[in-house]
Amino acid sequence: MKKLIKAREQMIQDMLAGLDIQDDTVTVIEDTVVVRAQQKQTGVAIVSGGGSGHEPAHAGYVAEGMLDAAVCGEIFTSPTPDKILSAIKSVNTGDGVLLIVKNYAGDVMNFEMAQEMAEMEDIPVEMVVARDDVAVSNVEQRRGVAGTVLVHKYAGYLAEQGQSLSEIKDQVTAFNEGIKSIGMALTAPYVPTTEQYGFDIAEDEMELGIGIHGERGISKEPMQTVDEVVQRLLDTVLKEVDAKQVVVMVNGMGGTPLSELNIVTKYTAELLDQYEIKVQYWFVGDYMTSLDMQGVSLTLAPVTDDQLTALTARSESQYFK
Amino acid sequence: MKKLIKAREQMIQDMLAGLDIQDDTVTVIEDTVVVRAQQKQTGVAIVSGGGSGHEPAHAGYVAEGMLDAAVCGEIFTSPTPDKILSAIKSVNTGDGVLLIVKNYAGDVMNFEMAQEMAEMEDIPVEMVVARDDVAVSNVEQRRGVAGTVLVHKYAGYLAEQGQSLSEIKDQVTAFNEGIKSIGMALTAPYVPTTEQYGFDIAEDEMELGIGIHGERGISKEPMQTVDEVVQRLLDTVLKEVDAKQVVVMVNGMGGTPLSELNIVTKYTAELLDQYEIKVQYWFVGDYMTSLDMQGVSLTLAPVTDDQLTALTARSESQYFK
Repeated sequence: MKKLIKAREQMIQDMLAGLDIQDDTVTVIEDTVVVRAQQKQTGVAIVSGGGSGHEPAHAGYVAEGMLDAAVCGEIFTSPTPDKILSAIKSVNTGDGVLLIVKNYAGDVMNFEMAQEMAEMEDIPVEMVVARDDVAVSNVEQRRGVAGTVLVHKYAGYLAEQGQSLSEIKDQVTAFNEGIKSIGMALTAPYVPTTEQYGFDIAEDEMELGIGIHGERGISKEPMQTVDEVVQRLLDTVLKEVDAKQVVVMVNGMGGTPLSELNIVTKYTAELLDQYEIKVQYWFVGDYMTSLDMQGVSLTLAPVTDDQLTALTARSESQYFK
Repeated sequence: MKKLIKAREQMIQDMLAGLDIQDDTVTVIEDTVVVRAQQKQTGVAIVSGGGSGHEPAHAGYVAEGMLDAAVCGEIFTSPTPDKILSAIKSVNTGDGVLLIVKNYAGDVMNFEMAQEMAEMEDIPVEMVVARDDVAVSNVEQRRGVAGTVLVHKYAGYLAEQGQSLSEIKDQVTAFNEGIKSIGMALTAPYVPTTEQYGFDIAEDEMELGIGIHGERGISKEPMQTVDEVVQRLLDTVLKEVDAKQVVVMVNGMGGTPLSELNIVTKYTAELLDQYEIKVQYWFVGDYMTSLDMQGVSLTLAPVTDDQLTALTARSESQYFK
């Protein structure tokens, strides 16, 4: 499998150098921590991160109205506590830091460790753990996937409004708990660092309930047409969504053409209409990817009017509609 | 090969329905013509279009500050003159219409025919033909590729400034002639409508000088590392670029992960720095794609200060940084 890279050992470094060059609004510090070039002087700072391979997550969301910093690990590998601590210390204005972490053992462990180290230096730190992937039945073990990006936006908006760390944590936690996602894949991601595909899949098969790190899904099935695929995904998600007003994210997995994401949007809209669920806003694009995997995830997030205002307020990130 | 579609016959219709649903700022008329929901009342209207399969081009650029309408053909197939005429008539404010057309025989013929039909109805129409692809040595036969999107932006900006049709045509023509692009691919696009791949390519090969419709390139070679690939592409483009101040577009072909586009950006920047060419602005992302093809194109556009202002002014398109 071919990749536009120099060497797998320097992929992340090269990728972040390219981001730094093209975007004057961000700066890379300590090799793998992306911060805003003009850091804010007051207010709660929002920090996220995790393994790389999910671009534009997370570094693409470092922007006014979203994240203050993103800590980038190696491909599909958590960043280390010392880098997370560097991010926290770099962006803390004195008003505290909120960490947004996807629910993977390594990420949660390393962000918690960084939180403890920061608290020992008297920096107030809170954490919200995203676990929106309903493909995993045990709620505690649910993975954070595309819905995490909505959490970034909501938290970033509240921070811009000048709310306190505890106020933001409470509101973000409540919003986060309602978000439900599920994904499917047509192809497996090719992981340059291991030189392997995430899983095997035949030319006429699809994998339902995949993760974003090349994790096999919950069932492998013969490929169906898009309307049937959407029905399968929504049926699973809607078991856990009571709300009648939602925002929907149709997330591309990295190798899916925009044309197909738009087609998924059409069939999702038709089905939600049948179920009398009103879509207040659509996010359609590559938000939380898995390298070059072809596939899509659907995220439903119940929203109040205030939450809708927050999610649709313009951010300065070019990657978040 | 698997696709998230219902049936190949209705791919474009479904795709545009999905766009219409998700974006309140555009409306689809006559099945395949995308116009702004709130059309402007005065000033020159900018219309583009062509075959589909290049998303977000062209419909994604229908927005304040860019296009007034995009006419969408079937996959890799020119729209018909009657649809182009409908677009022209729908957006004409009385101040005339500029057509931006990529240099393919079918597109040029059909847009010219629509132009003649519109002129018979006393609508002033001018045309600019994009031919930025230096992979084709005969200048008259050069294809319009990713650089076309910069032409959309420049024309849209001038129209917003209230310039006349002849003023806009002259300035856009001058800018257009300086734009030079070249592309390469790691994979061939799979074309749902023909159920075939654009060309054959082995697991260890790359294709240099490809088009955006699955056209074979000018040479097939063993895969190289990204720095070598960038060197090859830039050496070809720079034979035709004298300017020392440019904007650069690093365009993904539809299936290329953003991480790799960022890596390409890094090596492009290093090489241009060696050649003492100053990059005034970077556009990095999927702008003019070829379905699910993995690959990249580089576009260099010499710019004056005024042109730079135009290209970097904020547009309302979510797909154009």
